[in-house]
Amino acid sequence: MPTARELVEQNKDRYLGWLTEACSIQSLDGQPDELAKMAKWVEDKLSGLGAAMSRLTYESAPDAILGVLGSGDRSVLIYDHYDVQPVDPIELWKSSPFTPEIRDDKLYARGCADNKGDLVARLAGLEVYKELYGEPPVTVKFLVEGEEETGSESFERITTQYREELAADGCIWEGMGIDHVGRPELVFGAKGLAYVELYYRGLAEDQHSSIAVIAPSPVWHMIEALSTLRSPGGEVLIDGFYDAVVGATEDDMKLLEELPFEAEAERERMGIESFVGDATDLELVRRYYFEPTCNIAGIVSGFTVPGASKTVLPKEILVKIDMRLVPNQDPDDIVAKLRKHLDSRGFSDIGINRFSNEHPVRSPSDSLIARAALAACSDVFEEKPAVSPMMIGTGPMYPVASTLGIPTVSPAGICRPDSNIHAPNENCRIDDFLHIIEYTVAWLKRFGELEE
Amino acid sequence: MPTARELVEQNKDRYLGWLTEACSIQSLDGQPDELAKMAKWVEDKLSGLGAAMSRLTYESAPDAILGVLGSGDRSVLIYDHYDVQPVDPIELWKSSPFTPEIRDDKLYARGCADNKGDLVARLAGLEVYKELYGEPPVTVKFLVEGEEETGSESFERITTQYREELAADGCIWEGMGIDHVGRPELVFGAKGLAYVELYYRGLAEDQHSSIAVIAPSPVWHMIEALSTLRSPGGEVLIDGFYDAVVGATEDDMKLLEELPFEAEAERERMGIESFVGDATDLELVRRYYFEPTCNIAGIVSGFTVPGASKTVLPKEILVKIDMRLVPNQDPDDIVAKLRKHLDSRGFSDIGINRFSNEHPVRSPSDSLIARAALAACSDVFEEKPAVSPMMIGTGPMYPVASTLGIPTVSPAGICRPDSNIHAPNENCRIDDFLHIIEYTVAWLKRFGELEE
Repeated sequence: MPTARELVEQNKDRYLGWLTEACSIQSLDGQPDELAKMAKWVEDKLSGLGAAMSRLTYESAPDAILGVLGSGDRSVLIYDHYDVQPVDPIELWKSSPFTPEIRDDKLYARGCADNKGDLVARLAGLEVYKELYGEPPVTVKFLVEGEEETGSESFERITTQYREELAADGCIWEGMGIDHVGRPELVFGAKGLAYVELYYRGLAEDQHSSIAVIAPSPVWHMIEALSTLRSPGGEVLIDGFYDAVVGATEDDMKLLEELPFEAEAERERMGIESFVGDATDLELVRRYYFEPTCNIAGIVSGFTVPGASKTVLPKEILVKIDMRLVPNQDPDDIVAKLRKHLDSRGFSDIGINRFSNEHPVRSPSDSLIARAALAACSDVFEEKPAVSPMMIGTGPMYPVASTLGIPTVSPAGICRPDSNIHAPNENCRIDDFLHIIEYTVAWLKRFGELEE
Repeated sequence: MPTARELVEQNKDRYLGWLTEACSIQSLDGQPDELAKMAKWVEDKLSGLGAAMSRLTYESAPDAILGVLGSGDRSVLIYDHYDVQPVDPIELWKSSPFTPEIRDDKLYARGCADNKGDLVARLAGLEVYKELYGEPPVTVKFLVEGEEETGSESFERITTQYREELAADGCIWEGMGIDHVGRPELVFGAKGLAYVELYYRGLAEDQHSSIAVIAPSPVWHMIEALSTLRSPGGEVLIDGFYDAVVGATEDDMKLLEELPFEAEAERERMGIESFVGDATDLELVRRYYFEPTCNIAGIVSGFTVPGASKTVLPKEILVKIDMRLVPNQDPDDIVAKLRKHLDSRGFSDIGINRFSNEHPVRSPSDSLIARAALAACSDVFEEKPAVSPMMIGTGPMYPVASTLGIPTVSPAGICRPDSNIHAPNENCRIDDFLHIIEYTVAWLKRFGELEE
């Protein structure tokens, strides 16, 4: 009997063909025909593997695809998405984003890393498993949604509506990645996000700046409001902002002590002298994973051409604020607190528009699925895994890991730091793709064999 | 003998022809041929009036034109400029900016109000005077520069270099205007201006906003710096900012008491609830003329598309600050104080780029030329003049009124509040143009006749 690795190598062209097919479909938000084509592609592949297919629908959202295969009381939910990020700025792409091209052992295409690479590798992994060992040892529920890149707005509703269909003993989330030295990365949660736009218009029209001597400046008003939100050391000053924060436990701190974190390399990469609050060593790592943020993602008002002057008193100002949340902060509660904070300081005239809204979530790192995903790393990767409590970014993991209560792990995946996800020239390494196929076989086998 | 008004009416088409010619020349910064053409046009007109011509040159600056005519020990310097503001946004013009067009008794063209209208009306006034009374009763030194709209960078050097040629007993500055109810406006000075760009780049590249938990935010750093510069009540907090301020004298306050200032109309026009510092009545008027400002004319960083979200930690931020200065603040000193203020608070990493640089200036309101300009108002205008100590805007009056020590008045001029200077559809009323011709005759006559 060949090993998983040998079988993957033998079928390399077949699976690269699958990936190329998937990456040729322009499954972008706003292109319903292409989204439907991609949903159908996923459906056909799962169906070809012998899965029982269904579509999870919610209003006008792109259909989520569910394929169920294997058998057994133990069950695993796999989560991926079939939609991709926009391609702009298109002129920076070296090859056409939907014409996959291989250069230097990497495949270049929009979505190849986020998340079609993992999606296809997992489909291929199921086929390889079948060829090696027969039917999956557990019930596999393969869920692929089509709205992730626009915020998974319907996902929570879908998970609630199809709660029974999706019930499982563990969930393998969209792949986390492989770090810059080749360590497979595993996380058991994600930070949350509250993204707001602060908006203030204080004058009917822009005025000549000489009028600023008597007309209140909307820009200064906003600066005054902003300066109440955060201390220079990085502490968020919104009243009650930290009330619900759970923070790192002793076990978490032990995990963080073992976590590879190359502070000096990060510092140099970013071109900074020191980190927020002058944090170093373990405190820096703790902050990284367990502190929430209040970041200004954008600010604009008035005349902004560099190197030129125009004397204007601008009528309005717009500020984008993104707050990364940690368990158990609630994005609705945080935005309500921001509103109250501003109101109580004379800034009730500043408007708040809301955009993204994600709950932070943590899942146990010693669940069966977590243990299987971790153990399987040693079957495939040479480097020791890098295990962290949460990703510092955000994903729609909350409805699965918290609302449905399914222990969830985002395991080793195809993304590298230089994969350019959400950017021009998105790419994945062919080797990584093959490893993730092999890894899928490995964790599936481990999950079937592990004792409670 | 006809009256001045009758003669102006008779020659209306001739002088409108002059204005149309002048406004057809695209005397814009960056168009040296058109600037030269306009300089030549002014030269020809002055020469045609019998003036002795010379060119005041300084390095690569557009030539300033000086025409001297009339005779007598008493002398007046007239200041105008022949360059105009850019025309962008061109698409908002209803007629081509350099193809003057008359609609509803107004002439529309770039520069017709700022300042070719005054310039041509004064040239015409000299001709009308000559026809009515013969040679001017005083020595007239007509100075027309070509660099005003880009900050009169060479003007101070030119005035120093040609100090003797420009010496005069009084100066008639570029016309102030006529207010919204038809009152001729006179001022005897101008606020100064220090315009700076604050610039801070704190990261090698933009980062994903999740990184804000450990990477110091350049935007927050700038917000912290800005929040030290000004109190919510409008007081500028830059260390030593007010040290050189002279403030309003008792005489000034008497002048201000008589000044028409329609606070309620201004408040409604601007759509505000109250003025800076909740100022009202005389305190509001005092503030208007005698307080300096620290205004944010522009600010930009990161993602700024309204109604959309992008999670980024921006690497840099740019802020435009314009400070209107009052006597005897010095723009160099103020920028040095800003630098020191920032340095002493941990913001030495914020860069300062300088642009405009104008000294504030005041001239006596009881000089011979001031009295002549004031008295002449009653010869031409029905409404009582609106006299204020300084314009709240800025002009390069300092080298003449202060360095050369020539008593200076910016008298009634062609600009109305709705003339759209520096904006699309710049216009002047034909009636105002004719009145300013007549007014030129009147103040010239008065200036010749007044006893010391």
